[in-house]
Amino acid sequence: MTINPDFLQLDTGAAEPLYRQIYMRFRAAIADGLLRPGDRVPSARALAVDLGLARGTVEAAYSLLAAEGYLETRGQAGTIVSPALTRHAPVAPSARPADPAADLAGSPAPFHRPFQMGLPALDAFPRKVWAALAARAIRATQAADMAYPSYCGAPALRTAIATYLRLSRGIDCAPSQVFVTSGYRNSLELAARALLHPGDKVWVEDPGYVPTSDLLAWAGMRPVPVPVDDEGLQVAHGAACAPDARAAVVTPAHQSPLCVSLSLPRRLALLDWAARNDAWIVEDDYDGEYRYVGRPLPALKSLDGVGRVLYAGTFSKVLFPAIRLAYLVVPPAQVKRFEAVCETFAAGGPALTQDIVAGFMNEGHFARHIQRMRRLYGERRQMVAAELTKVLGRHLRIDAQPGGMHLVLRLPGRHTDRALAARMREDGMFALALSECSALPHAASALLLSFTNIETPRRARELGQRILRLT
Amino acid sequence: MTINPDFLQLDTGAAEPLYRQIYMRFRAAIADGLLRPGDRVPSARALAVDLGLARGTVEAAYSLLAAEGYLETRGQAGTIVSPALTRHAPVAPSARPADPAADLAGSPAPFHRPFQMGLPALDAFPRKVWAALAARAIRATQAADMAYPSYCGAPALRTAIATYLRLSRGIDCAPSQVFVTSGYRNSLELAARALLHPGDKVWVEDPGYVPTSDLLAWAGMRPVPVPVDDEGLQVAHGAACAPDARAAVVTPAHQSPLCVSLSLPRRLALLDWAARNDAWIVEDDYDGEYRYVGRPLPALKSLDGVGRVLYAGTFSKVLFPAIRLAYLVVPPAQVKRFEAVCETFAAGGPALTQDIVAGFMNEGHFARHIQRMRRLYGERRQMVAAELTKVLGRHLRIDAQPGGMHLVLRLPGRHTDRALAARMREDGMFALALSECSALPHAASALLLSFTNIETPRRARELGQRILRLT
Repeated sequence: MTINPDFLQLDTGAAEPLYRQIYMRFRAAIADGLLRPGDRVPSARALAVDLGLARGTVEAAYSLLAAEGYLETRGQAGTIVSPALTRHAPVAPSARPADPAADLAGSPAPFHRPFQMGLPALDAFPRKVWAALAARAIRATQAADMAYPSYCGAPALRTAIATYLRLSRGIDCAPSQVFVTSGYRNSLELAARALLHPGDKVWVEDPGYVPTSDLLAWAGMRPVPVPVDDEGLQVAHGAACAPDARAAVVTPAHQSPLCVSLSLPRRLALLDWAARNDAWIVEDDYDGEYRYVGRPLPALKSLDGVGRVLYAGTFSKVLFPAIRLAYLVVPPAQVKRFEAVCETFAAGGPALTQDIVAGFMNEGHFARHIQRMRRLYGERRQMVAAELTKVLGRHLRIDAQPGGMHLVLRLPGRHTDRALAARMREDGMFALALSECSALPHAASALLLSFTNIETPRRARELGQRILRLT
Repeated sequence: MTINPDFLQLDTGAAEPLYRQIYMRFRAAIADGLLRPGDRVPSARALAVDLGLARGTVEAAYSLLAAEGYLETRGQAGTIVSPALTRHAPVAPSARPADPAADLAGSPAPFHRPFQMGLPALDAFPRKVWAALAARAIRATQAADMAYPSYCGAPALRTAIATYLRLSRGIDCAPSQVFVTSGYRNSLELAARALLHPGDKVWVEDPGYVPTSDLLAWAGMRPVPVPVDDEGLQVAHGAACAPDARAAVVTPAHQSPLCVSLSLPRRLALLDWAARNDAWIVEDDYDGEYRYVGRPLPALKSLDGVGRVLYAGTFSKVLFPAIRLAYLVVPPAQVKRFEAVCETFAAGGPALTQDIVAGFMNEGHFARHIQRMRRLYGERRQMVAAELTKVLGRHLRIDAQPGGMHLVLRLPGRHTDRALAARMREDGMFALALSECSALPHAASALLLSFTNIETPRRARELGQRILRLT
């Protein structure tokens, strides 16, 4: 049958673009059974005429729907609702699509499954203040702001970052040492481009943040896993196994994923190794602010007397990931080299984003937001740990950690974590197994679960019960 | 002497952030002689108290002023206006700073010198429409939009680009073949990461776009210059000298910098070479829309029957450079590999920018803007060529080209272009010498001057006279 487009009650005054409204209405109509698999839908041309819209608007909606498998184009036979769609198809009529690109790219939607790692508490972000700053930045845009921005980063932002690092992380650096990037991995890529060569060995923590090793390997380096204990990276082990490494990538504040802090003796040993071997240390300080016991520790970089530490900070965790903004602080002697790399690769993000963030920082919102989040995460962490322990205490034990954005839930046995994590993912939750973060054979079993987006004890309990059914 | 901060008439209701107002007022006061080299200025703390502002606001302004050499901090002795400043210091009291980062990075301010290459007509950009779309995108932002975006690009934008390419450039591709990047060079870097190996030879046009060779060389490839004649890249020459090259980077629409189009026989020869050698062709279509004689040529990619062409498009020229947004279209068989690279390197720009551009495209503004610009550039090109010929006709001859965003002004003799270009740059103009774009010894002499931002015949004449005085 051919359907009647009456269900498309578009709101031309709404903030949501029309193509997106059409897209959502179709998804909803399919979810509600109003449109059924095999139903013919009007051609884009006909629907555009019916609705008094540009054909391109309807085509954009149809393309998205087709890309996600809701519609199928059959040449002369027209466009139909995909016959393959069953009632169990993943449709979310009332929610905005989580991430249509996930379908486009063939992988599962990444947003906001319970326990999703690396995601700040998006409900607590000061969206009104942010929107006002953004609107102001847009209004203030002049022609000069639309030309090629500095490939090293907007000066106002570099200055604001240098000020913040001095006050909050104990790092004394000039704005010219701060290079703005599109994320932590882009910072790491920049460091590798500037300072390393294909074939160079690089120490990575084990267990560790897997994308770090993946990126280094793809860029032609040889990541060498160095084990981590309760004082952090075992520097002596690295120095024994791969003394000739050209660099080490570490997470000193809260080790990723174990959340332990790199002890002072280890910090000094690492700096000493780097100084003696002319090696580089990349300090990935992705969540250094989120320490709930005492004050945040100063960064490793603050102890760097010999100019061997590159400090990688990011706005993904303290603001939000979609912003794609991070930075790398380099030793003064390396500034010229990094400038050359940035010029060659035309690095740097959009002027608008950098402008908004500089305003957010300079007007005190940034510091206030971090303080608020530190308090909120401290509360959520304690609350989620308590609720999960009530429900799951017989099956696992939660590490006491000084900081971080996730919990480490220890399981009995070895490699029992992978099976449970896989079952949780099948059940629609997010879960990372500790042994999946390790290239070495002796990893203990644990689940890594973020608490940042769990708002109430009731929700935490519900999730605990969902896990319990899977154990 | 210590100065009186009365000159700081701040406007707390203005769109311009307060730190920026302070920065500008200081620059203006120094330019006007109100503040003189050696004058002491109030401490940031004292000035903040005086003005009732947060200390950070004043510190941000002072940091920028110090970074640019206007102020000097002398420890206990306080902050003074730099004694090194003379009356000839580059101060622009009424204008927003062109690019303070230039000072931060130690290079000259890049924005908007007369004849600046690669810059669209920023005065003609529809800023109101853009600002309205941006404001709408910001209002419509929901928590889901703040999570990690797709590393391959926002689906709505990938879909809009695929539709545009089909209609405007004759390229038939699915949204999943479109990878969003932060600029042409990022696209080239992505292609190299996915398909090339260190040591691989890559044909580059000679004369050509120097950053292409620089980037390839830095990334470990070996760029091989292949000469260009009036039909574009001499494919037979490349096939004779470096038949084993793994890739060729070309600008088929309007060769950069000569503006000639790659002829159909050469296009077919290039495709044939690539097919027979399993080599890749990167089509840099940076200004393919800007053809003033007849319709824009279809892209080389539209002839690619064997899946060897990667099409690189950019929004820097058709929108504006500060947006840092471009894209790469890859053959279907390579999609998985590019997805893996994008996932590994966490590529992709901010969600907000991609949202705004998708709206701009889907609602027809993009096509209208390109049409308007094509007309405007056609007029400006003819006007600037005519005026420069009136003034300089005895000294140079302007190539008749079908398209592009700059003029090629032929000079008599060999390598006479470098000296003149250097004198023009010293005089505050932008100028690129053709022989500077060439690694081969036989380059002719010419100046490459952009006409896009020259608005009136009078301005063109003035600039012509300025060049005449330097010949």
